[in-house]
Amino acid sequence: MDSRIREHAEILVDHSAEIEAGDNVVVSASSAAEPLTLALCEVIGERGAFPFHVSYRTDRTRAAFLRGIESDALDLPDHELALVEASDVWIHVRADHNVADIAGVSGETMSAFRKAHAPVREEILDTTWVLTQFPAPANAQNAEMSTEEYEDFVWSAIGKDWQAQYEHQQQMVEILDAGEEVHIRSGDTTDLTMSIEGMTTINDRGKNNLPGGEVFTAPVADSVEGEVLFDKPLVHQGHEVEDAYLRFEGGEVVEHAAAKNEDVLTDVLNTDDGARRLGELGIGMNRDIDRFTYNMLFDEKMGDTVHLAVGRAYDECLPEGESGNDSAVHVDMIVDMAEDSVIEVDGEVVQRNGTFRFEDGFEG
Amino acid sequence: MDSRIREHAEILVDHSAEIEAGDNVVVSASSAAEPLTLALCEVIGERGAFPFHVSYRTDRTRAAFLRGIESDALDLPDHELALVEASDVWIHVRADHNVADIAGVSGETMSAFRKAHAPVREEILDTTWVLTQFPAPANAQNAEMSTEEYEDFVWSAIGKDWQAQYEHQQQMVEILDAGEEVHIRSGDTTDLTMSIEGMTTINDRGKNNLPGGEVFTAPVADSVEGEVLFDKPLVHQGHEVEDAYLRFEGGEVVEHAAAKNEDVLTDVLNTDDGARRLGELGIGMNRDIDRFTYNMLFDEKMGDTVHLAVGRAYDECLPEGESGNDSAVHVDMIVDMAEDSVIEVDGEVVQRNGTFRFEDGFEG
Repeated sequence: MDSRIREHAEILVDHSAEIEAGDNVVVSASSAAEPLTLALCEVIGERGAFPFHVSYRTDRTRAAFLRGIESDALDLPDHELALVEASDVWIHVRADHNVADIAGVSGETMSAFRKAHAPVREEILDTTWVLTQFPAPANAQNAEMSTEEYEDFVWSAIGKDWQAQYEHQQQMVEILDAGEEVHIRSGDTTDLTMSIEGMTTINDRGKNNLPGGEVFTAPVADSVEGEVLFDKPLVHQGHEVEDAYLRFEGGEVVEHAAAKNEDVLTDVLNTDDGARRLGELGIGMNRDIDRFTYNMLFDEKMGDTVHLAVGRAYDECLPEGESGNDSAVHVDMIVDMAEDSVIEVDGEVVQRNGTFRFEDGFEG
Repeated sequence: MDSRIREHAEILVDHSAEIEAGDNVVVSASSAAEPLTLALCEVIGERGAFPFHVSYRTDRTRAAFLRGIESDALDLPDHELALVEASDVWIHVRADHNVADIAGVSGETMSAFRKAHAPVREEILDTTWVLTQFPAPANAQNAEMSTEEYEDFVWSAIGKDWQAQYEHQQQMVEILDAGEEVHIRSGDTTDLTMSIEGMTTINDRGKNNLPGGEVFTAPVADSVEGEVLFDKPLVHQGHEVEDAYLRFEGGEVVEHAAAKNEDVLTDVLNTDDGARRLGELGIGMNRDIDRFTYNMLFDEKMGDTVHLAVGRAYDECLPEGESGNDSAVHVDMIVDMAEDSVIEVDGEVVQRNGTFRFEDGFEG
């Protein structure tokens, strides 16, 4: 076995999920991730915990099910919910045989499925959960890299000094936690303001996402005003949406467009009321992720980007006891900030053209 | 897709499990069974039911876990139990990448695992459960057949007229239900008596096992006397046990031996008290299974065989409200009845040299 697979498993178990003896762990992974699944089952066993291997999000089996069922027969699957409720840790390993396997399912069916399934996803977010990537050949292909190049890319981004990364990111956390209004401008196409007053900024150091490498918070739901063009493509359920555009008034999307697959974006926005509002503002800070790979888990962590998600907010960003924007979806979209772009917090520039105020080469 | 895969899925869903709209279904299968898993997810969806794909018994992930954990850390995994408790139907598809993947795990660890896991297995038996086989290459290899030959063998045994098979078997059910004492003799090596008074005989027509094709009941636990040589090999956890021999007194195994891997047999018998008593008497009646394939799901259904299982009895064989022999194991072993053999019920010969009293060529 490639020693990096064993290392990947150990980081997931010991750093990300901090698995302890007696923990009930679900390893959710398709057969394309088999080497990592096996390493995980062994390491989890070594810690005295109990792995259960499921293929919760294997898109090929899910697509087969959704080809079969009528949309209006979709309902909450109690047995899946019961499994999650009784689990302490949920590790989901992304790895595909074909990243487009879900593409044959209609947007309407996918929306109905997401709605029916929402309580299961909610419950997963109440476990200690981790999302990671195994560098399967189909994912390398999707990234336009050879499998060997992609293995290097993935495992370099994962096998980092996470304490050093935490400290780097903490500088931005402090700026956002002290701030109230965020203003994002990029070229002629993006000019967006939002309040983050009272919200908490999370320092993502490889806990829920491996690799980590971003800071994120939740916008005040009604505060978002202006327009944004997501100039990096978004891949949703196997469909690539290009140049997604959203215009907000009073926090709500009042206009949208896309250069390619606009109907996919429309289906997302029509899922429920919360799908038309922002649930997340994220700022990429992982300088080891140095190229786009059409994979949000990596792309959103890039140092020269900002990402916004329509849909559900993360509870950890919200004031104690307050519920944020709620939705069955959470769909991230990326703005490239490398050129002709600024992030301002309360009127002060904190990033210009991708360089942060606390980094070398910043021009204020 | 081979149309026989779709047919296999439909028989499982409609005949074996009788899945209805709204059922919560678990499809437990390794990646070696992927074509059937996909067909099952689609057909289950068509019926308006909800498939959840897990790899509960993928021996490679289980072996990895058991390599990692210390025997004394093994415990009941609550999340697996919760999943089963909330499930209506459990379909387990056998299919291996390597039938010996579990062989590296010690008998002691396997015994500890089986004990810790017993409540999960009990709960599965309370669902509508089906066990079947997908003809994966490693299973064909184990059967000493080409993959194509093995596909023909498996799908011929499965794609039967199950109503006709039921009627054929019912003749033997009536003999056993009316009988009290069973006497099995084969050559000089097997001479065993047991009482089946008050027990119910089950007509296996492809419900819990696909293929089906046997009738079985539970011996009265204390009534088994005599000796038996299982002249067909038993494959247990990847180890082949040859010429297993058991001698019973007062229902209990008081002596045992095997020509090969006797220690595997010893570990089974030492699991718990119930592992030293018989839980099942089964009589194979499927004439379409015409050769041994080192796979109990098929071998025990052959027309010229009797099988006995040490360990747990099936509740359905027992008088209402009575609990039968209890154990964490249920391990079947086969006696070849083709030559110099008889089955007697209450002193009357009901099978001689593999031919039943109600079949052509019977010599009373």
